Amino acid sequence: MRGVIMDAPGEIRVDDRDDPTILEPTDAIIKIAATCVCGSDLWPYRGIEDVDHAPMGHEYVGTVTAIGDAVKTVKVGDFVVGSFFASDNTCEICRAGYQSRCVHAVPMGAIGTQAEYARVPLADGTLVATPGRPDADLIPSLLAASDVLGTGWFAAVAAEVGPGKTVAVVGDGAVGLLAVLAAERLGAERIIAMSRHADRQALARDFGATDIVEERGDEGVAKIKELTSGLGAHSVIEAVGTQESMMQAIRSTRPGGHVGYVGVSHDVELPGIELFFSGIHLHGGPAPVRRFLPELIDLIWRREINPGKVFDLTLPLDEAAEGYRAMDQRRATKVLLTV
Amino acid sequence: MRGVIMDAPGEIRVDDRDDPTILEPTDAIIKIAATCVCGSDLWPYRGIEDVDHAPMGHEYVGTVTAIGDAVKTVKVGDFVVGSFFASDNTCEICRAGYQSRCVHAVPMGAIGTQAEYARVPLADGTLVATPGRPDADLIPSLLAASDVLGTGWFAAVAAEVGPGKTVAVVGDGAVGLLAVLAAERLGAERIIAMSRHADRQALARDFGATDIVEERGDEGVAKIKELTSGLGAHSVIEAVGTQESMMQAIRSTRPGGHVGYVGVSHDVELPGIELFFSGIHLHGGPAPVRRFLPELIDLIWRREINPGKVFDLTLPLDEAAEGYRAMDQRRATKVLLTV
Repeated sequence: MRGVIMDAPGEIRVDDRDDPTILEPTDAIIKIAATCVCGSDLWPYRGIEDVDHAPMGHEYVGTVTAIGDAVKTVKVGDFVVGSFFASDNTCEICRAGYQSRCVHAVPMGAIGTQAEYARVPLADGTLVATPGRPDADLIPSLLAASDVLGTGWFAAVAAEVGPGKTVAVVGDGAVGLLAVLAAERLGAERIIAMSRHADRQALARDFGATDIVEERGDEGVAKIKELTSGLGAHSVIEAVGTQESMMQAIRSTRPGGHVGYVGVSHDVELPGIELFFSGIHLHGGPAPVRRFLPELIDLIWRREINPGKVFDLTLPLDEAAEGYRAMDQRRATKVLLTV
Repeated sequence: MRGVIMDAPGEIRVDDRDDPTILEPTDAIIKIAATCVCGSDLWPYRGIEDVDHAPMGHEYVGTVTAIGDAVKTVKVGDFVVGSFFASDNTCEICRAGYQSRCVHAVPMGAIGTQAEYARVPLADGTLVATPGRPDADLIPSLLAASDVLGTGWFAAVAAEVGPGKTVAVVGDGAVGLLAVLAAERLGAERIIAMSRHADRQALARDFGATDIVEERGDEGVAKIKELTSGLGAHSVIEAVGTQESMMQAIRSTRPGGHVGYVGVSHDVELPGIELFFSGIHLHGGPAPVRRFLPELIDLIWRREINPGKVFDLTLPLDEAAEGYRAMDQRRATKVLLTV
């Protein structure tokens, strides 16, 4: 089969890879219908994470083509959505809603879903079948559920977004934009998107943002304070993963408020004494997307939400290298790869 | 009046200070019945925080001797308990339960309650009157409510302690020990106190600890994992404030679990990437003791809890220097000063 390989930072190749096979009785094989490039794929692409001839991709939707003997809840022919972490969904951590930290978790990124087929471990715990074959226009939204929507949703839940609350969103990538959508669905009264890109501002407003703040860093914090009677937002979503974005999020939050952070923290050191006196709640990490999949698939299926709008560039799998370039150069927010 | 002054690190003097007077119509003056030395007073005592001829002390119980014109809820003659932050208890932050970060907060440490009298700003929002004159044996417990009990209680609430949960407590000072008491009252199934001092272990067990772990750092973490099927505790309370204790707390917590931290963080830097993948909730800071005072006073009044047991040395105010020495040298867990 064809699949994406990152040989080194900046070097993307689409080449032949071995067809996946059932290795464990709990595995399924899926024929991928669509996959995409994640903001987190840019970390190794930019040399911030090590990479050496690695298969790439962890977002996926597709059709089950084979299952292991132990698989019970999905069958050959099902159209499925899965999370970027395979999880058994039965262990104590999964049952508490933290499937991305399942005691048997397998990162799908190590398997590489930017490919024609993928082996999905722990299929029963990982995959959720859609009610039927999706219409073509639903595919981007279902694919978004696999990571960026699920991650934005988790960030909003982690930030305890809810009715009557003012929410600020740091980061205008796909996750930040979909966190705006999640905040709107979760009933936030006011949603402040922090963005300086006109196209992303427009999408943020489309998803429910009530205010846009273009300032960053301390100026961004001052603006959020100004909009919230000097107190800071109740809920702040961090969807970048840098020192600046984390501090911007923490400082934009009122005492007793909540930061939900899902940007993969790189070279971030949180100053203890400032965090202490901030009096905020901090929660985040790799989103347990599986927790939210049934609900998100249902919302998409009923066309109540359209998270697929974050994809602003669609390319065939063979042109993945251009997809990476477009995201790296910020020419695209999120790139969908058709398979 | 007589009052404690710290001239420089390690230099405690009890000397004449000006009698406090009503400065604002919202002030009250109280005659202090008992005060104490806090673990946080040791930071400047040990030179870790700057200090220069400062009045000391922020814990207090006593009798109201004068009130400003605007004070409505306490009257002259009332026996009162207050928090270590004066707060209006009416602003949006107070109403959300974060009185220590009240928009008008005044740190009582700047006023110095290790003295015969103290001015209490925002008396209506800060002070809670007891149902009557307390019996002498209740004074230590009421004094504990002013900070260490309220702080330990907040830590347990911040760590989301509750029925069915396993709780670990890092730190065996007065706050850690009273966090054990709080965890027991809040219905924790299992309470692991981390302590290597026999007397403190005994008090922890008396307050409800079911297990004692003597190991620290990575060994302590391994022990907590061993006691929790490899997962970590649901709730971990951090009551020290060092890099080691914070990392011990974070690493002892299962994914999705909660750390409640109340040790004043000094020279602490939290590594972002480890925190991210831990998947924990982190909440803490200066405890909003005022939130819990009515409930804690009630529990003490009905003799359902006896947090005053943490005081293992009682001295007259004039011997405050010996009290500081005893706590610094760990000869005492908590020193009560009679006035």
